[in-house]
Amino acid sequence: MSDNQEFRPINLAQCEPFRWQGVDEFIYKAEDGTASFKDVSRRKLFIESAESGIELRYFEIGPGGHTTLEKHDHMHLVIPIRGRGSCLVENRLFELSINDMIHVPSWSWHQFRAAEDEFLGFLCLVKVDRDRPTLPSESDLERLKQDPQIAEFIRHR
Amino acid sequence: MSDNQEFRPINLAQCEPFRWQGVDEFIYKAEDGTASFKDVSRRKLFIESAESGIELRYFEIGPGGHTTLEKHDHMHLVIPIRGRGSCLVENRLFELSINDMIHVPSWSWHQFRAAEDEFLGFLCLVKVDRDRPTLPSESDLERLKQDPQIAEFIRHR
Repeated sequence: MSDNQEFRPINLAQCEPFRWQGVDEFIYKAEDGTASFKDVSRRKLFIESAESGIELRYFEIGPGGHTTLEKHDHMHLVIPIRGRGSCLVENRLFELSINDMIHVPSWSWHQFRAAEDEFLGFLCLVKVDRDRPTLPSESDLERLKQDPQIAEFIRHR
Repeated sequence: MSDNQEFRPINLAQCEPFRWQGVDEFIYKAEDGTASFKDVSRRKLFIESAESGIELRYFEIGPGGHTTLEKHDHMHLVIPIRGRGSCLVENRLFELSINDMIHVPSWSWHQFRAAEDEFLGFLCLVKVDRDRPTLPSESDLERLKQDPQIAEFIRHR
C-alpha cells in the first residue's frame, strides 16, 4: 500500500495480536537528523479518500522508546491498546494504560514514551488533510524544561 | 453531560476496566416500540463541537444482546475492546475479537451481537453531524433473509 492511497477494508481482522491482515509496517518517519525518536513503527488501519476524511493509525513504541516531541495544527485522538507508557501533552504528564483516551489539542507539545520494560501500542486518529509537525526550538525546550518533571520526561536529540 | 454538549477531555483515564472517569452511561436509544435491540449501553468519550467534528462512543452489549438492525448515510468505524461477538455488515457476517476493526460503509445494513456467554464492548467513531438510522421494511428483511446464515443471524422484533 502506498503512503497516501485510500484504504477502507470492511473487516480488518488480526493475524496475530496487534498485527492486521494486509496491513504493512511503515517506518515512523523519515530520519530528521536529530534522532528525535526511538524504536517506533506505524501502521495504517483506515484511510478515507476525502480531505476531510479520517485516518486511523496504529503506532507501536518498543520498551524504552519514544516518539518525537512536536506540535502541529491538527489534533490527535489516542487510545492505547497494548502495554503501558506515558505522555506529555501541553504542560502535563500522563500515565497511559490500555483503553485510556488521550486528546492532543491543536498546537500542544506532545511526546509518547513506552515503559522501560513494556511496549506501548496505541491507535491514533487524525484527519487525512493535516499539517506537518513543528519541532521545538532551543527556547521552546528551555521553556518546557522549566518544569523539572517535564525536563526529566522529555527525550530530544 | 447533556446529549449534544462538546466533550473534549485531554486525558480520559479509566476508573475501572471499560468505565471512564466523568463519563456517564446513556441508554442505547429511545424504545422504538419494536424491541429492535437488547441489553445495550452507550458512553460518549469524545465530542467535537464542529459539525464536521468527530465523536467517539463506547457501546457495550450484554451476553446474548444485540444492537438494532439498521442503515444510514453516515459511516461507522468500530473497534472491539471488550469480549467477543459478531456482526452483519451489508450481506456479510464477521466474527469480532478485541482490536479487530470494522468499517460500516454508508447505507450498509448492520447489526452487532455479543456472544451468548460474553460481553461485546466496542469503540465506535462517527461524525458529529449525522443522519438518523433507517429501519428495515418487511421487504428489506425478506431480501436479507434470502441468505440462510443471515436469516439465522438477524434479531428483529
